[in-house]
Amino acid sequence: VTGPGPSSPRTPRLTAARRLVRRSQRDRLDRFLAEGPQAVREALNADTAVHDLFVTATAAARYPELITAAQLDGVPTHVIAESVAADLSETVTPQGIVAVCDSVAVDWPAPDPAAMRLVAVLMQVRDPGNTGTVIRVADAAGADAVVLTAGSVDPHNGKAVRASAGSLFHLPIGTGGDPLAVVEQMRSAGLRVLAADAGGTDLDRLTDAGGLTGPTAWLFGNEAHGLDRAISAAADEVVAVPIHGRAESLNLATAAAVCLYASARAQRAG
Amino acid sequence: VTGPGPSSPRTPRLTAARRLVRRSQRDRLDRFLAEGPQAVREALNADTAVHDLFVTATAAARYPELITAAQLDGVPTHVIAESVAADLSETVTPQGIVAVCDSVAVDWPAPDPAAMRLVAVLMQVRDPGNTGTVIRVADAAGADAVVLTAGSVDPHNGKAVRASAGSLFHLPIGTGGDPLAVVEQMRSAGLRVLAADAGGTDLDRLTDAGGLTGPTAWLFGNEAHGLDRAISAAADEVVAVPIHGRAESLNLATAAAVCLYASARAQRAG
Repeated sequence: VTGPGPSSPRTPRLTAARRLVRRSQRDRLDRFLAEGPQAVREALNADTAVHDLFVTATAAARYPELITAAQLDGVPTHVIAESVAADLSETVTPQGIVAVCDSVAVDWPAPDPAAMRLVAVLMQVRDPGNTGTVIRVADAAGADAVVLTAGSVDPHNGKAVRASAGSLFHLPIGTGGDPLAVVEQMRSAGLRVLAADAGGTDLDRLTDAGGLTGPTAWLFGNEAHGLDRAISAAADEVVAVPIHGRAESLNLATAAAVCLYASARAQRAG
Repeated sequence: VTGPGPSSPRTPRLTAARRLVRRSQRDRLDRFLAEGPQAVREALNADTAVHDLFVTATAAARYPELITAAQLDGVPTHVIAESVAADLSETVTPQGIVAVCDSVAVDWPAPDPAAMRLVAVLMQVRDPGNTGTVIRVADAAGADAVVLTAGSVDPHNGKAVRASAGSLFHLPIGTGGDPLAVVEQMRSAGLRVLAADAGGTDLDRLTDAGGLTGPTAWLFGNEAHGLDRAISAAADEVVAVPIHGRAESLNLATAAAVCLYASARAQRAG
């Protein structure tokens, strides 16, 4: 473990890392900050290159296995002051351990959906917490990829990384496609394109009719505005999670959980 | 519309309202702040007493129908400065419209689960956003009640109110029961008690075996620690949402969404 210690916290590598709290710099440098023990562990386990590890003394004492793993991988590891940890964090509770990694998302038209059975597409979703949570639930449901269309939040945003709980490193993430082009790409690859939106076919009815057994791309819309009309029109079917009570709607992540798990179950049944 | 205007923002009613950003004061006064147009609309529609409405000039212009509704109900309505709106908000983006309401949650042992078919029980859940989101998804899934055991976050917390998107006013919310006593209460009322936790029976297998068709109380644990061993042992069955990918787990709200919707579907099928 090398590093300037709490009293002289500025080094070129630290200065470079601090830039990555801004999306423009992440895009330019194609790197991001994986913060927290879970993200750091997954980053070290993944194929992603890890360039630096920054840890507070407290975090180093708490997660010695991560320091060891970084050393074994030849990752330069730097002790930083608590105040510096806050500068490397986009969350209100800095976790004291941050890895500088190569970006994991790939530019559209990758990942190629040709052999995929289940894909979650986020259409211009803006909230990083929601985005990370959907990546986590897509991973759990066994989805083959998550696609974020142009205009979506950066999945390397600190809050998205944290909400993904490591899943950002588990499955291919594509970014930047035009929404209609992504729909066409999914359909051309043989996936049925289902737009999750109120007013569509009841999800349970579609499930009972066998409509979820084949390869499927689910489209989920923006938290505030839902899906554009043109997108819903371009989908093979608009599908609504049934609302049995008096709620107006579900939030994005819970709706995605219900839809993706309905697909996972239907694809594995019978 | 009455009120002191931006230049003289302190009145006794405003001072009283500001106290309600603290849980201790909410508990003492049995009132809370419903912030945002959706929460205010639901508060005015609900049986809950609304004592005051505070609005910025901007919000008053944007939501005239809410001002009218408040006036028709005889709710004193006060114009406040933007800076004062921030004092009445527990969120980082104050919405400029806040109603002072009677608390909606009832102390344990209410609500009585005797005639209920689906109940969500949050066991010492600490995160207000998760709590509000679970209340919203429980409402959407047609649950009859949500119970928060002693040691849980206050569902009247501003972030919980916001995340519930009005659902806090839609179904009975019980608070304060001892976790084991709540389990016993549910079972005595004829509900099957299912503990959602990793390592349990696969949810899909239980569904296929007909295990979700009867009245059910789902137990969901703390974000960090899950359910206490004693609670899982006291449940009729421990049930796990299947993890098909590489995620370690689901977050609380998405796990609750999958479990509650599995029950909703099973109870309505056949």
